[in-house]
Amino acid sequence: MTTHAAARPQATSAFAVLYAEVQQFYAQQMQLLDQGACDEWAATFTEAATFDVPTLPEPVAGRAGLAEAARRTAAQLAESGTRHRHFMGMSHVEEQPDGSLSVRSYTTVYASRLGGESRVHRVCVCDDGLVRVDGALQVATRRVSRDDLA
Amino acid sequence: MTTHAAARPQATSAFAVLYAEVQQFYAQQMQLLDQGACDEWAATFTEAATFDVPTLPEPVAGRAGLAEAARRTAAQLAESGTRHRHFMGMSHVEEQPDGSLSVRSYTTVYASRLGGESRVHRVCVCDDGLVRVDGALQVATRRVSRDDLA
Amino acid sequence: MTTHAAARPQATSAFAVLYAEVQQFYAQQMQLLDQGACDEWAATFTEAATFDVPTLPEPVAGRAGLAEAARRTAAQLAESGTRHRHFMGMSHVEEQPDGSLSVRSYTTVYASRLGGESRVHRVCVCDDGLVRVDGALQVATRRVSRDDLA
Repeated sequence: MTTHAAARPQATSAFAVLYAEVQQFYAQQMQLLDQGACDEWAATFTEAATFDVPTLPEPVAGRAGLAEAARRTAAQLAESGTRHRHFMGMSHVEEQPDGSLSVRSYTTVYASRLGGESRVHRVCVCDDGLVRVDGALQVATRRVSRDDLA
Repeated sequence: MTTHAAARPQATSAFAVLYAEVQQFYAQQMQLLDQGACDEWAATFTEAATFDVPTLPEPVAGRAGLAEAARRTAAQLAESGTRHRHFMGMSHVEEQPDGSLSVRSYTTVYASRLGGESRVHRVCVCDDGLVRVDGALQVATRRVSRDDLA
Repeated sequence: MTTHAAARPQATSAFAVLYAEVQQFYAQQMQLLDQGACDEWAATFTEAATFDVPTLPEPVAGRAGLAEAARRTAAQLAESGTRHRHFMGMSHVEEQPDGSLSVRSYTTVYASRLGGESRVHRVCVCDDGLVRVDGALQVATRRVSRDDLA
């Protein structure tokens, strides 16, 4: 995101199709994660995807590792009677010369305690590299930053 | 939502039109509710719509009942000096063989006290069945779940 | 926003293009603000834009004033070890007869303290008048209301 809006009009039908597809993709991806469908969630990443998020001790690479990390988190949440909800939005989509997409989005993570309160857990920025595999979008690289960390 | 993104590419112009229409529809519907336009809000549902939400003691059916429930909530909020704001997003839209739409969305409800603080009130998942009446979308069925309830 | 959804079907390809463009525009505009790119942010407004928000003692007019107000806020946040994040959504877009756009959106502002908690700071409604300058969208008028103020 290096130029301002005035410099790059994007009102094309192709962009509208792409933008809707990206939003639908993220809606599905986050819903899979939040309902604990860890393998299906991992399948929205490329086979060798890299995932770098401050919550994990080190970057994860590959679907198996992603699914395992998701299962571990799901188990911890279940044990503590907590639900997480990943609300993503504000996606800024840039098509790259090689056809991949650079997408910067905001993600708020809400935490709810069963029988208790709901609150903001994390406020994150998510920088994705999306590619097309057999026609469908997948995340090849994800880098997440948290607003509460310096 | 039974398959993962890789299985169902959706990059068509028709889908983009539909997705934008759904987003615009929800924006208007929630804005009507939050500004207390209860009859106009109820008119975004079908005449015989069913609405099942944990906040109400039992499911509501029909526009008159919906408008009445909205008015009751609006009166309670006014009395307690509170404003609610329904922020929906993350919509996953699936067209059904009969032309209706199944839409799963996230909805965060914020509560603000006049002269006080704003906070997360509820984190919800909203499962809608949308149909077209005279060309425009309406909610035929809505089922809402809350993250803080088991 | 004076009529309900049933009265005005909008499922056209032109609307889908416009809706995607508006979302991309806001994503970029808010990301510029939140990363402290104050001049680039101000450039998403028209030269003579008016900006009326309860946080400022009086309405601001013109890019120079907007950039200065943004820099002042950025400096205060940096000093207090706080990050703000403007999460906009629920945009309802109406094209006016003169080609300008009236857009009503919700904006949640999150505040995170470095090394501390994240929370809801403000819940706002944002009423924009958007115009096209050299093909690209710019904000000509913005009026923001806060849910915590009467």
